[in-house]
Amino acid sequence: MIRMRDAMAADLGAIVAMLADDRLGRTREHPGDPGYAAAFAAIEADPNQRLIVAETDDAELVGCMQLTFIPGLSYRGAWRAQVEGVRVVAARRGRGIGGQMMRWAIEESRRRNCHTMQLATNKSRHDAHRFYERLGFIASHEGMKRALRDET
Amino acid sequence: MIRMRDAMAADLGAIVAMLADDRLGRTREHPGDPGYAAAFAAIEADPNQRLIVAETDDAELVGCMQLTFIPGLSYRGAWRAQVEGVRVVAARRGRGIGGQMMRWAIEESRRRNCHTMQLATNKSRHDAHRFYERLGFIASHEGMKRALRDET
Repeated sequence: MIRMRDAMAADLGAIVAMLADDRLGRTREHPGDPGYAAAFAAIEADPNQRLIVAETDDAELVGCMQLTFIPGLSYRGAWRAQVEGVRVVAARRGRGIGGQMMRWAIEESRRRNCHTMQLATNKSRHDAHRFYERLGFIASHEGMKRALRDET
Repeated sequence: MIRMRDAMAADLGAIVAMLADDRLGRTREHPGDPGYAAAFAAIEADPNQRLIVAETDDAELVGCMQLTFIPGLSYRGAWRAQVEGVRVVAARRGRGIGGQMMRWAIEESRRRNCHTMQLATNKSRHDAHRFYERLGFIASHEGMKRALRDET
């Protein structure tokens, strides 16, 4: 059994390890960087942010994701739920954990009365596109990004 | 001269009119719906949301956009700036107002120490893609959406 819960400060090392153990993440993450703890504090202080971990019965962390609830005027003042940083630990992939996490996120977003759930996934992540399409997501939009700093 | 400022409650009617005067927006917005005022209050109460209007010297509103500042763990705990609902009033399009708004948003996001700016734009909005590409955005991601309610 997998359950979802809000991340605690003690989970931070395991979460950053998941973000770094990723084809795109390995070049951009640096476990141990003090920026992670500052970001965790900012997420925890914001009631519209939830950093969620997936945990097994024996308290092993096997997945993580961030949910952001965004109030907006469009669609008659609808809230949106945005998902970022969805990861499952490498040794546990292919067992439906990601699907369980996303279905939990969908229900939680409905509970928060969100009209839409949205995410952006790198165009090179073909498996992720199929995964999200199976969950009812439609690739209706271009996800555009612009770096704001010189260094990465 | 155009200047940007945070929207006030008195601007709400003009902003909703801009959202509704749009090829995709006209089917989904209903000016006068009480949801807009509730959403405006939620945006105003959240220090990570800014609803911005572009105003002429004689106090005419000619554009709007929403900026959302999102703390996250990825990229060593970087903040992201997200833009939604960028609109310029029909009679003023093609005069560079949208570019001025976006350059202001880029500078404001740098001031908030954001690592990246991101947005999702409907795949049918070809003019918007070129507009954002000229501003340095790259369509690197699939923007995926999932409706959470039965009705639209």
